[in-house]
Amino acid sequence: MNVDINCDMGESFGIYRLGFDEEMMSHITSANIACGFHAGDPIVMERTIELAKNHGVGVGAHPGFPDLVGFGRRSMELTPQEVRNDLIYQVGALAAFARIQGLPLQHVKPHGQLYNVAAKDEPLTRAICEAILSLEKNLILVALSGSKMAEIASKRGLKVAREAFADRAYHRDGSLVSRKREGSVIHDPQKVAERVIRMVQEGKIQSIEGDLIDLEVDSICVHGDTPGAVQLAQTIRRHLEEAGITALPMGKFL
Amino acid sequence: MNVDINCDMGESFGIYRLGFDEEMMSHITSANIACGFHAGDPIVMERTIELAKNHGVGVGAHPGFPDLVGFGRRSMELTPQEVRNDLIYQVGALAAFARIQGLPLQHVKPHGQLYNVAAKDEPLTRAICEAILSLEKNLILVALSGSKMAEIASKRGLKVAREAFADRAYHRDGSLVSRKREGSVIHDPQKVAERVIRMVQEGKIQSIEGDLIDLEVDSICVHGDTPGAVQLAQTIRRHLEEAGITALPMGKFL
Amino acid sequence: MNVDINCDMGESFGIYRLGFDEEMMSHITSANIACGFHAGDPIVMERTIELAKNHGVGVGAHPGFPDLVGFGRRSMELTPQEVRNDLIYQVGALAAFARIQGLPLQHVKPHGQLYNVAAKDEPLTRAICEAILSLEKNLILVALSGSKMAEIASKRGLKVAREAFADRAYHRDGSLVSRKREGSVIHDPQKVAERVIRMVQEGKIQSIEGDLIDLEVDSICVHGDTPGAVQLAQTIRRHLEEAGITALPMGKFL
Amino acid sequence: MNVDINCDMGESFGIYRLGFDEEMMSHITSANIACGFHAGDPIVMERTIELAKNHGVGVGAHPGFPDLVGFGRRSMELTPQEVRNDLIYQVGALAAFARIQGLPLQHVKPHGQLYNVAAKDEPLTRAICEAILSLEKNLILVALSGSKMAEIASKRGLKVAREAFADRAYHRDGSLVSRKREGSVIHDPQKVAERVIRMVQEGKIQSIEGDLIDLEVDSICVHGDTPGAVQLAQTIRRHLEEAGITALPMGKFL
Repeated sequence: MNVDINCDMGESFGIYRLGFDEEMMSHITSANIACGFHAGDPIVMERTIELAKNHGVGVGAHPGFPDLVGFGRRSMELTPQEVRNDLIYQVGALAAFARIQGLPLQHVKPHGQLYNVAAKDEPLTRAICEAILSLEKNLILVALSGSKMAEIASKRGLKVAREAFADRAYHRDGSLVSRKREGSVIHDPQKVAERVIRMVQEGKIQSIEGDLIDLEVDSICVHGDTPGAVQLAQTIRRHLEEAGITALPMGKFL
Repeated sequence: MNVDINCDMGESFGIYRLGFDEEMMSHITSANIACGFHAGDPIVMERTIELAKNHGVGVGAHPGFPDLVGFGRRSMELTPQEVRNDLIYQVGALAAFARIQGLPLQHVKPHGQLYNVAAKDEPLTRAICEAILSLEKNLILVALSGSKMAEIASKRGLKVAREAFADRAYHRDGSLVSRKREGSVIHDPQKVAERVIRMVQEGKIQSIEGDLIDLEVDSICVHGDTPGAVQLAQTIRRHLEEAGITALPMGKFL
Repeated sequence: MNVDINCDMGESFGIYRLGFDEEMMSHITSANIACGFHAGDPIVMERTIELAKNHGVGVGAHPGFPDLVGFGRRSMELTPQEVRNDLIYQVGALAAFARIQGLPLQHVKPHGQLYNVAAKDEPLTRAICEAILSLEKNLILVALSGSKMAEIASKRGLKVAREAFADRAYHRDGSLVSRKREGSVIHDPQKVAERVIRMVQEGKIQSIEGDLIDLEVDSICVHGDTPGAVQLAQTIRRHLEEAGITALPMGKFL
Repeated sequence: MNVDINCDMGESFGIYRLGFDEEMMSHITSANIACGFHAGDPIVMERTIELAKNHGVGVGAHPGFPDLVGFGRRSMELTPQEVRNDLIYQVGALAAFARIQGLPLQHVKPHGQLYNVAAKDEPLTRAICEAILSLEKNLILVALSGSKMAEIASKRGLKVAREAFADRAYHRDGSLVSRKREGSVIHDPQKVAERVIRMVQEGKIQSIEGDLIDLEVDSICVHGDTPGAVQLAQTIRRHLEEAGITALPMGKFL
């Protein structure tokens, strides 16, 4: 039994530091590396790839909206072609650094509002799928488990990693509980780890409404820049091992 | 007898148009395509590659300093590592679009002040050479004929295209006459064409001081955004053909 | 009887040229000058203010979304505070150049999607109103005639210039006909001029559905970067004069 | 006996945090606030002004080169007019936020390489002086004590604050010892404080070569983003008070 643990990485920029990249690398199996649009720069990108390589962590591109000051968290009304071309540009740039380090690019995970907007917008999802397929047929797309995006991408023939969020509460329809609502984020590492084990072993999670719902998962998303992030990742990883689940880069089993 | 004709292309940005790209493509054999730092954007980059493809023109990357408002024409004191990584980022992004169009990247030509600064700065030249070699051993570096950069790159094992400027006057030591000086730019298309023929056939050019000097040339640089640019390129191309010289993408004969 | 004629100006950037600023200045009375976020740069801004000054044209700020590659034409989901602060930043920067030239800033006109989005979004409109009032009580806000924005701003105590578009068709409810629909743009200068005269003299315009509707207007918007733009502005100006209407900077009569 | 203590502030950007702004504000008397080119954004700028206001700290503009990824620390070859206009733009933007908070702008201190380059380049210094004078005759320019820049600005009629660096070693000619050399930075807070007291009381400092040299000082520069920065500022401030020296915003006594 396998599962991947992914984390956003390489989101520093110039003099600015963000995230506990070095500490997190020991606990995760796939790194989503920012590509310079919402965060990251050519120095940070290469340093992060080297760091991932040293830890045997799978390298993926984490393209975002072209909005550095907003960290890619503000919706932008881009056309499907603009999204496609911005994605090819960013993934191409990151892939060049990976190639130089002798690593194939493993996956693509859209960042922030690009992830959220594309999950609901079919033409955008299609644009993203075509961009990835045209770049490299074996690139895995990381998409929210149960989302329209995951479904469209699978039908289109992409390899898809169905993603679940380790510390977030879910509604009974499989959607994430808004961060604005109390109880949306689970802070107890023990409890988070137990939820993760259940997802992986049974494909189930208890929704905030109380029901047990289906949630298939190939990759667990952990945060790398919040207080307690390193300890949480560590706890999840230990519990997985104790439960006999192997944490592996998604490219090894998908 | 072969020679390449190269021109800076894809320097439009967003709503802004620059250069007679469509008209120039019929007359040149290699396009140096801006990569988004000094000019160009992901939409323009792909459109320009398609245009080049339709005309059988070789596609190259034209990376520059990260200075859009200054169009890469202002010196910036970057470290060799910053230059290397900025170059890998830009070339990687452009190469992704080229790959999607089924084209291999043919060459790299640094833009503006990056070209000028690197030509005189050995650590920068070395950084550029290493970046290109690490990306792809067959990529050609376009460098000023007779420059330190051309020499260093050749010794390092890169394929080098020695470049000459069609309409610029040269000093007897092979350096370009400053644009500030009268006579630095030759405006008569007929005269420019004759100089070009002589360069290609004899490897010679008459310097502004009157001497005949050596100037080996693999690629002629023409401008694509000045008044009369299209007509000048056309005239040069016609004279080359009449003289029995074949204009070919540099990758076909280097 | 007075009316203002406004035009977007100073939308060049670095090496890139956009719009017929020099030719247009003779025909307009107020210039909306880009402030560096969607277009414009510190050199272009000052040059445009000097140009306006030489023609007795009123100087206004034309702030936009922070999206140069999208020219401020793509919606961005900014919070009211982000819109407020981006506006203060841009207007403050432009006002500094105006002050140096001895000119008071006359007006503010949001650009592109900021204009469109704010016109429909009350919290954004309020943010814009507060920003302008806090900067300078006498600054005029240019808003679409009949829009929610014009209404809110007036109630809040701002001076408002109600704007109409010279060459655009209107629906019977006073909204603009989408550019995607045939007949949305009127190309015949003679016809445009006649519509403008009627707006100014009678406060009426014929809608695309055929009805005569109310349309109060303080300022006519003309385009400065489309083919025929200069001639159209010239024609409108001449017809206004022949009809005994004085074209004046909005600050002179509002 | 008075002296000012200045510190670079507001150098956060978007999601990125830099510097201990809140903690430092209690210990300094003047804040050099980044203006969005090398660091800072419209939200950070206003927040920093509010913070300064709450602590009775003088507000100044800290304009830099347009190079966010390089944090304004890389030289750029800008023309004097480009430097002048970039400075007016940045100072104008910051001044707008200050005005809204009811604060007059107190000073201008160029950032990073703009400070270093201008200190040695007369045309750039003149461009900066003219920009400041044209904006507001009472704005104080912060310049390295004993530098060409301080001299030129004084002669031109600007108010100048002669600045010394609290924790940096000086050569016998009054220049700063390069950071690359051992002993260039003094880490013992006690020792730093003693040097500062001597500068203020006697206008003297011991150079790295051992001589006692003249160093007139109106404002002490302290760092706000290094380990121990808060404690160092606190120690200096306490020693000043114990020595009967009043720390005051430069605008109160210059």
